[in-house]
Amino acid sequence: MRILGVDPGSRLCGYGVLDAEGLGAYRYVECGVLTAARGAPMEQRLGEIARWLSDVITELRPVEVAVEKVFTHANVSSALALAQARGVVLAVAGMAGLPVSSYAPAVIKKTVTGRGRADKQQVARMVQALVGLRRPPQVDAADALAVAITHAQYQATRVL
Amino acid sequence: MRILGVDPGSRLCGYGVLDAEGLGAYRYVECGVLTAARGAPMEQRLGEIARWLSDVITELRPVEVAVEKVFTHANVSSALALAQARGVVLAVAGMAGLPVSSYAPAVIKKTVTGRGRADKQQVARMVQALVGLRRPPQVDAADALAVAITHAQYQATRVL
Repeated sequence: MRILGVDPGSRLCGYGVLDAEGLGAYRYVECGVLTAARGAPMEQRLGEIARWLSDVITELRPVEVAVEKVFTHANVSSALALAQARGVVLAVAGMAGLPVSSYAPAVIKKTVTGRGRADKQQVARMVQALVGLRRPPQVDAADALAVAITHAQYQATRVL
Repeated sequence: MRILGVDPGSRLCGYGVLDAEGLGAYRYVECGVLTAARGAPMEQRLGEIARWLSDVITELRPVEVAVEKVFTHANVSSALALAQARGVVLAVAGMAGLPVSSYAPAVIKKTVTGRGRADKQQVARMVQALVGLRRPPQVDAADALAVAITHAQYQATRVL
């Protein structure tokens, strides 16, 4: 089952695609960071990210999408900006007819590293090991692969 | 100048299109409420709204878009849901190459009714009078026309 994980952002949007082949077995397909023009108006940045993400889906043909839940934490305005970007990811997936599953950040970190409060570098190193990359991916791409891995684990566990 | 006003929502998305012809002069074009399937997954609802809003832009060819700002008020989770829907509107406008202007709810109410704390029915009745409709539009469509009127007023004032 090919899974697209997305780490939404209004300028940097990480994506990671892998094929899940049963519990703990993944085949890496591709990852990257969609990067909108710095300083461009929000509608232009979100429009670019929507178009590129749609291209990724058309080209790599995932069948399921996984994305982080948004929490408000301390900074409400950055949570609202993140929610806007997340809405774009949901709409692009919805237009492609793909179901989306959401996971809390702590669940993703716990699944990938064994600890709910791991930092971004630890996540990137564990993702590197789990999917067998030569180097740790960029942090936004690593976060996207981490949510794809989490979804793969949850799906595999559900089937057992 | 043809303006598209949007009242974002994850199930009901109001839109209103008018031609602004100088300070206080508007020609009504169209309004309505895009209504996604109740109970459908969020990605499917946002995907439907994105597609329909894109159709509205293709058909009616507005040159500018106006939309409400999101605040967190008391209910943070509904603000996050609204921000997700707003992100979809921004991305659809951005993909069509249209600039988006944002206005605070109190500014919109004040511009349309003279009071920053008017209720939805008062807004709908004033919108009806301002654009010359036979009956008040549905509240979500009225809110969309209200933000379009606000943008028209601000643009006209800027030009003077």
